[in-house]
Amino acid sequence: MEMSTSYHTAGQISDQLKGQIIGDPALEIKGLSAIESDEANTITFYGHPRYEQHIYGSQARAVLVPTGFDPQITTHITFIKVSNVYEAVSQLSSIFTNIQDPKISGVSLNCTIDAGAELGTDVSVGHYSVIDSGARIGARAVIHDHVYIGKNVIVGEDTIIHSGVKIMPGVSIGSRCILYPNAVIGTEGFGHALSKEGYKKIAHQGSVIIEDNVEIGSNSCVDRGAMRDTIIRKGAKLDNLIQVAHGVEIGENVAIAAQSGISGSSTIGKGSQLGGQVGIAGHVKVAPGSKIQAKSGVAANIEEANKKWYGYPILSYYNYLRSYALFKQLPDLEERIKKLEKNQPGE
Amino acid sequence: MEMSTSYHTAGQISDQLKGQIIGDPALEIKGLSAIESDEANTITFYGHPRYEQHIYGSQARAVLVPTGFDPQITTHITFIKVSNVYEAVSQLSSIFTNIQDPKISGVSLNCTIDAGAELGTDVSVGHYSVIDSGARIGARAVIHDHVYIGKNVIVGEDTIIHSGVKIMPGVSIGSRCILYPNAVIGTEGFGHALSKEGYKKIAHQGSVIIEDNVEIGSNSCVDRGAMRDTIIRKGAKLDNLIQVAHGVEIGENVAIAAQSGISGSSTIGKGSQLGGQVGIAGHVKVAPGSKIQAKSGVAANIEEANKKWYGYPILSYYNYLRSYALFKQLPDLEERIKKLEKNQPGE
Amino acid sequence: MEMSTSYHTAGQISDQLKGQIIGDPALEIKGLSAIESDEANTITFYGHPRYEQHIYGSQARAVLVPTGFDPQITTHITFIKVSNVYEAVSQLSSIFTNIQDPKISGVSLNCTIDAGAELGTDVSVGHYSVIDSGARIGARAVIHDHVYIGKNVIVGEDTIIHSGVKIMPGVSIGSRCILYPNAVIGTEGFGHALSKEGYKKIAHQGSVIIEDNVEIGSNSCVDRGAMRDTIIRKGAKLDNLIQVAHGVEIGENVAIAAQSGISGSSTIGKGSQLGGQVGIAGHVKVAPGSKIQAKSGVAANIEEANKKWYGYPILSYYNYLRSYALFKQLPDLEERIKKLEKNQPGE
Repeated sequence: MEMSTSYHTAGQISDQLKGQIIGDPALEIKGLSAIESDEANTITFYGHPRYEQHIYGSQARAVLVPTGFDPQITTHITFIKVSNVYEAVSQLSSIFTNIQDPKISGVSLNCTIDAGAELGTDVSVGHYSVIDSGARIGARAVIHDHVYIGKNVIVGEDTIIHSGVKIMPGVSIGSRCILYPNAVIGTEGFGHALSKEGYKKIAHQGSVIIEDNVEIGSNSCVDRGAMRDTIIRKGAKLDNLIQVAHGVEIGENVAIAAQSGISGSSTIGKGSQLGGQVGIAGHVKVAPGSKIQAKSGVAANIEEANKKWYGYPILSYYNYLRSYALFKQLPDLEERIKKLEKNQPGE
Repeated sequence: MEMSTSYHTAGQISDQLKGQIIGDPALEIKGLSAIESDEANTITFYGHPRYEQHIYGSQARAVLVPTGFDPQITTHITFIKVSNVYEAVSQLSSIFTNIQDPKISGVSLNCTIDAGAELGTDVSVGHYSVIDSGARIGARAVIHDHVYIGKNVIVGEDTIIHSGVKIMPGVSIGSRCILYPNAVIGTEGFGHALSKEGYKKIAHQGSVIIEDNVEIGSNSCVDRGAMRDTIIRKGAKLDNLIQVAHGVEIGENVAIAAQSGISGSSTIGKGSQLGGQVGIAGHVKVAPGSKIQAKSGVAANIEEANKKWYGYPILSYYNYLRSYALFKQLPDLEERIKKLEKNQPGE
Repeated sequence: MEMSTSYHTAGQISDQLKGQIIGDPALEIKGLSAIESDEANTITFYGHPRYEQHIYGSQARAVLVPTGFDPQITTHITFIKVSNVYEAVSQLSSIFTNIQDPKISGVSLNCTIDAGAELGTDVSVGHYSVIDSGARIGARAVIHDHVYIGKNVIVGEDTIIHSGVKIMPGVSIGSRCILYPNAVIGTEGFGHALSKEGYKKIAHQGSVIIEDNVEIGSNSCVDRGAMRDTIIRKGAKLDNLIQVAHGVEIGENVAIAAQSGISGSSTIGKGSQLGGQVGIAGHVKVAPGSKIQAKSGVAANIEEANKKWYGYPILSYYNYLRSYALFKQLPDLEERIKKLEKNQPGE
C-alpha cells in the first residue's frame, strides 16, 4: 500500500479492502478506534450487535460493517462494507502501525551462541540469550533477550521468540511462529510410575514439533512426549497460561483461549475452538470443528464434528442450557413435588 | 516506631496499634506467630472463629482480637483489642522484620541500559536486565535481575520489578507497584481474524496502563489492548497466574485471587473481589463491590453492586447454595417422582 | 545394566525387570515405542484396556503387560509380564536414553556468584544466572541459565534447577529435586489487610521448605508463608502452572496435575492425588490418600482418608456421577412433574 503514513482517505481504505463505501470517500482517517470511543477521523468496526448504538457517534468517522448491514437510523457516518469485518480489521491494523513493536536487529554482544549452532541470514539475537550446539535458526528469525534455546533445536524462518522463552533440547519450531514471553517448550511431561518407594520418573523420549504459523502465549507450557512427539499443527493459536501435556496433538487452525489445559495423549481436531479455562482429560479425541464453551471439561471422546459443547462433563450446548435453567429452579421443582405429595389421596 | 529491634512489650504494641490491652502490658514480644503455633513471647491474631480454640495456649503470648471479642473461657492470655485485626497484623508485620528481603542497590555492571533510557535518582538495576531506549524509571524504583523493559516504558517511583518480569514497549506502570517474578505485561492480546487461509493476527495498537499501588503476581499476564488500552486502576491486587486480556479495565482496589482470568474488553468494578480460578467472559461489566466465589464463571453483565455470586454461570450466592443442595438430592427427588407416578390413580 | 547401547534382547530386558517372558527371548529391542505405533524391534506397554487392540500389531515387538494379563487372541507377540507396568516403563526409559538432556557442566564465565555463596563439589551453573550471598548449593546440583537464587537459599545435592527459575531469599530446597523452567519459589503470598485507604500488605515472615525428591513444574508458583513456612514434603510431584499459596503444607508423595491451585494455610494429606484445574479453598485439610477428580473444588475439610471426590463443592465420586446423570435429565424430570400435576384430581 503506497500511501503516506500520515493519513489515508476512506476511499483509499475501501479500495484496499475491496469494500463498498457508503458516505464520504474523501474522509481522512488517521487510525483505528474502539467502537465506544467516538473519535473523529478514525475508523472503527461493527463486530457485535450489542455495540450497534455506539456506531452512530462522530460523523467524521468511518465504520467497517458486514456486507448485509443496514443502519437502523439515518446517519451521515461513512460505512465501508466488507465481506469479513475481522479480516479487514486485521489488514487495517497493520497499515496504521503506531504499535510499539519490540523490534531488535543484529546479534547482541552480550549473548552466548555455541560455535556448533547455525544462524541463518539476518537472524537477530537479544541480550543474555543462550543458543546451544546443534541449534539451527532460520533466516530472519528474531530471538529476543533472556531466551534459552537448547541443543539441536530447530527454529524456522521469520519466527519470533520473545524474551524469557525456554526451548528444551531437540524441539522443532516452524516458520512464522510467535512464542510469547516466558513460554516453556519441551520439558518432560508429568509422567511417573507409582512404586512402593514413591513416584519414579519416566524419562521422556519424545520431542515437541510445532509447525508453521503457530502462536504460543505468554507463560504457556508445552511438554515433550513420553514416547511419541507432542505436535502442534500449522496455524494453531494458543493464548496465555495454557498447558499442553505430553503426547498431545493439536490440529490445524485450532484456537485455544487462556488457561485451558490438554492432558496427556489427547488430540484436538482441526479447526476446533476452546474457550478459556477448558480442561481436556487424557487420552481423549476431540472431533474437528468442535466448539467448547469456556470452563467446560471434556472427559471422553467427542465423535461428532462441528458441534458446540458446554458443562463438565460436557453436554451438547443447548442441552446444558436447558438443564442449567432447571438447576436454577430446583427449589421450585421440589416445592411442586411436595405439593403433589400433599395432595396424594389416602396418605 | 523508635524501639529496639530485639523485643517490644505488649503495652508498647498496643499503644502503637491504638488498641486496648487486657492482660500483661509488660509481656515481651519477639515476633509474630501463627495461631496454631502456641509459641511463647509472640503475638498472634484471631482471624476466624474456626481457630478460636487455638487462642488459649501459651499464657506468655499475646493475641490481637477484634474490639467486640469476649474470651469464651477464663484465661491469662494477654489480649489486644483493635478495630481492624488484619490492618493491625499488616502494621506489626513490618515491625518484626526478620523477613528475607531480596534487596538490591545500585546498578549492576552486568546489565544493558540504552543510552536513551532515563533513570531517576537511586534507581537500582539487577544483573542481566535490559532497559530499552525511551524508558523512564522513577526515583528509587528497583529493577531486579533478568528483567526486560521495552522502549518507552514508564515505571513510577518506588516501584519494584522482580526478577524475570517482561514489560513490552509503551507500557506505563505507576508508583509503589510490585510486579512479581516472571509476570508478563503488554504482549499482544489473543485477537485474530478467521479467514479462509486461517487466523490472521490483529496488530494491537493499545497499550497497558497500570496505576499506583498495584500488585501483579508471579507468572501473571496482562495483554495490551487492540484499540483502547488495558487499564488496571490504583490499589488493585492481582495474585499469581492470572490472565488479563486485551482492553480489560480493572477498577480501584479490586482483589483477584490466583489463576482467575478476565476475557477481552470486560470491566471489573471498583472494590470487587474475585476468588481463585474465576472466569469472566468477554465484553462483560461487573458492578462495583461484586464478590465472586472461587471457580465461578461470569457470562453476562452484573448490574447490581455489592452482591455475592456463585456458580457457572453465576447465580446469586444463596440461590446457588439452595440449588446445589438439591442437586445433591436429585436421586432422592427422582425417587419421590417415581413414587408419585406409581400412586397415580387409574394408570 | 552392562549391555551394549545398540540393542538389548527381550530376554535381557525381562531379566532386568524380573519379569516373565512369553515369546522370543532373542528378539532384539532398540527402543521404547507408543502403543499405537506398531514399530518393529521396539518394546511398548499395556497401560489401559482402551488400547488393547493396539497390542497385536508387529510380531517383531515386545509388550510389557501386568502379571495377570491374558491375550484375547492368539498372537506371536513377545510379552513380558511384570508386577508394576509403569515402574518397568520407568526403568526401561532410563536404559534407552536417546533423550535430549539439557546437560551442562562446570560454572559459566557469564554468571554472577556472590563471594559469600558456597558451592559444593561439581556444581554446575549456567549462563547469566545469579547466586546471592549466603546461598549454599549442594554437591552435583545443576543450576541452568537465567536462574535467580536469593540470599541464604539452600539447594540440596543433585538437585536440578532449570532455566529461568526464580528462588527468593531464605528458601530451602532438598536433594534430588527438579524445578522446571520459570517456576517461582518463595515470593510473598497474597496477604493484604483491607483498610479505609485500600489494601495494605502483610509482610511475610515465613519461608518455603521443599523436601527431597520433589518436582515443581514449569511456570508454577509456591508462595512463602505469612507466619509459618509453606512446606512441600518429600516425593511430592507438582505439574506445570500450579499455584501453592502461603502457609500450605503438601504431604509426602502427593501428585498434583497442571493448573491446580491450593489456597492459603491448607494441608494436602500424604499420598493424595489431585487432577488438573482442581481448586482447594483456604484453611482446608484434605485427608491422606484423597483422590480428587480434575476441575473439582474443595471448600471444606475432607475427613475420611482414601476416598474419591468429584464436583464443586465436591461430593463423593459416585454421588456426583448419580446427581449429574439426573442433571442431564432435568428437562425430562420436569415433564414428569407437569404430567403428575395435570393428572391431579379436582384441580
